Amino acid sequence: MLTTPAYAAADANSPLAPHTIERRDPRAGEVLIDILYCGVCHSDIHQARDEWGGSIFPMVPGHEIVGRVAQVGEGVERFKPGNAVGVGCFVDSCRSCAQCEAGEEQYCTKGMVATYNGRERDTGAPTHGGYSTRITVKQEYVLRIPEALPLDRAAPLLCAGITTYSPLKHYGVKAGDRVAVVGLGGLGHMAVKLASALGAEVTVLSTSESKREAALQLGARDFAATRDPATFKQLANRFDFIVDTVSGEHDYNAYLSLLTVDGTMILLGIPEAPAPVAAGMLIMRRRKLVGSLIGGIRETQEMLDFCAEHGVASDIELIDIADINEAYERMIAGDVRYRFVIDMGSLKAEA
Amino acid sequence: MLTTPAYAAADANSPLAPHTIERRDPRAGEVLIDILYCGVCHSDIHQARDEWGGSIFPMVPGHEIVGRVAQVGEGVERFKPGNAVGVGCFVDSCRSCAQCEAGEEQYCTKGMVATYNGRERDTGAPTHGGYSTRITVKQEYVLRIPEALPLDRAAPLLCAGITTYSPLKHYGVKAGDRVAVVGLGGLGHMAVKLASALGAEVTVLSTSESKREAALQLGARDFAATRDPATFKQLANRFDFIVDTVSGEHDYNAYLSLLTVDGTMILLGIPEAPAPVAAGMLIMRRRKLVGSLIGGIRETQEMLDFCAEHGVASDIELIDIADINEAYERMIAGDVRYRFVIDMGSLKAEA
Repeated sequence: MLTTPAYAAADANSPLAPHTIERRDPRAGEVLIDILYCGVCHSDIHQARDEWGGSIFPMVPGHEIVGRVAQVGEGVERFKPGNAVGVGCFVDSCRSCAQCEAGEEQYCTKGMVATYNGRERDTGAPTHGGYSTRITVKQEYVLRIPEALPLDRAAPLLCAGITTYSPLKHYGVKAGDRVAVVGLGGLGHMAVKLASALGAEVTVLSTSESKREAALQLGARDFAATRDPATFKQLANRFDFIVDTVSGEHDYNAYLSLLTVDGTMILLGIPEAPAPVAAGMLIMRRRKLVGSLIGGIRETQEMLDFCAEHGVASDIELIDIADINEAYERMIAGDVRYRFVIDMGSLKAEA
Repeated sequence: MLTTPAYAAADANSPLAPHTIERRDPRAGEVLIDILYCGVCHSDIHQARDEWGGSIFPMVPGHEIVGRVAQVGEGVERFKPGNAVGVGCFVDSCRSCAQCEAGEEQYCTKGMVATYNGRERDTGAPTHGGYSTRITVKQEYVLRIPEALPLDRAAPLLCAGITTYSPLKHYGVKAGDRVAVVGLGGLGHMAVKLASALGAEVTVLSTSESKREAALQLGARDFAATRDPATFKQLANRFDFIVDTVSGEHDYNAYLSLLTVDGTMILLGIPEAPAPVAAGMLIMRRRKLVGSLIGGIRETQEMLDFCAEHGVASDIELIDIADINEAYERMIAGDVRYRFVIDMGSLKAEA
């Protein structure tokens, strides 16, 4: 076993604090990774504070992991020490259900094993995430990070990137399509970049006019403030797709009215309360309201390669691990452009 | 002009009563039809009672029209006197928007002209429907009724038939798919017949066990009573498609939970109040909530030909026009298997 420094939440009410975990030596088919960077996802906060229920403590969050291979187990041919690699939201799945066989492990019938706050399939031991200096992962769940990508800015691609890329590809966004992105946070800013890289004409819809310049800098062609009711009249029936990244309460029907015939609204955020949907909004123009959950391993690799080819990466604020609790508060206040990434060198130095 | 007996609602609070309308002599490209049968759609009641607002009175309802060509205007080559023909929910559209060009006139950007309670594109004159002995319609909006179909049982295909056939085809229902049909009325019974004819394994979901036998007779493989909460546990994640024909209030999330990964719930009914949708229900298994509105002319013809080939027609109760007000009350009480059709001979005899 490998004694490993980490940051953990001891319970739902405690701030994250230094902690020590054990990582296993890589077994056959496994890869030991020295973690260099870990992105900070809003779901880290939800789970560390047990806001979704069922959290396992002590919890080491983090599922936007980038590092280098330190050691490989027997039979590992895909990776060798020194390779830049990534780990996303899950580290295992059943590998035999229809979804796993289709490369869509995120919908595994038996349930994927979450990178943290999950349980290993064999032992039931809790999994621990990327707020730590190393991790041991089965090679099938390890991604290659292309050389063209900066490692720190690649970390958020493992969750925010694939969560937005997967539905854009699955629902067929293509060059020339009119795509609205609702909300300009970690997911939203990646949706703007990725949809633009796919050739779509992107409009950012955000509450206040203050984000216009930032939206255009990210690649959006247009911007509209949703606090202005005129926006919904002006943009009625306009978009082929809406990527809705907002998890706060908002009026789905107002956004559905912006879709053209056969348009698709993709939900990525989960508001606390179910939102009313008027059937007529869907029926009268054959609109679709759909969801999408991260993405499979194959598609995540495709997304990383796509980002390298198109020069896409996350906009980040690099922080030390000691600043993680403050970062959580700033994220809750919407004060980050657009993703915090922990420099794990700061944890090594601390330890 | 052709003085024509009809039944009309004088205003939102009056029962239907004998009335006289003028039909135009067929102009170039138009067809004069002697109406033999007209199905009674629930939307006839909503509009005759102005429950959706904006109704035009006096109103002659009816958009499930079957008859025979009496006379054709100049240049009509598709039809000749004596042909069995049908008219559905609309009699005109702009013919130049993307939707019209794609043969999906029901989504015409400028708005289709409803068969009744609409206004002619040129004159703005109110349109009058099939509760009358004849109608003059542009040939492009007239359907051929295949000889194999009984004319009375074909009438409801023009609305209930195409409303269910179009989404089954558009969303790709195929042999072996597991399809649930929610509600066993005019639309629901057609959805069971059509999905079964497409080779799907159909399960009817209805409030009470009393409809089991009827559901199986229509071609369903299975039945489940939705008043029993165990139904939703037993059938969780089971269906590829749900065809939801219910316009009363019901819990969308409970039905969404019955869809498998990538499953589609098709809304055809419009409840009065918007229904809450939990984003997680769509996200966690990439489910889709969609709508669909009747169907285009080309697809309606395809549906009629499909029905003729597969021996599918509506189950009906044939009534005299004098019984229409009583029929409305029985429909509101859910007391019809499964569609009333007016024998228009009874109006001719009356007039």
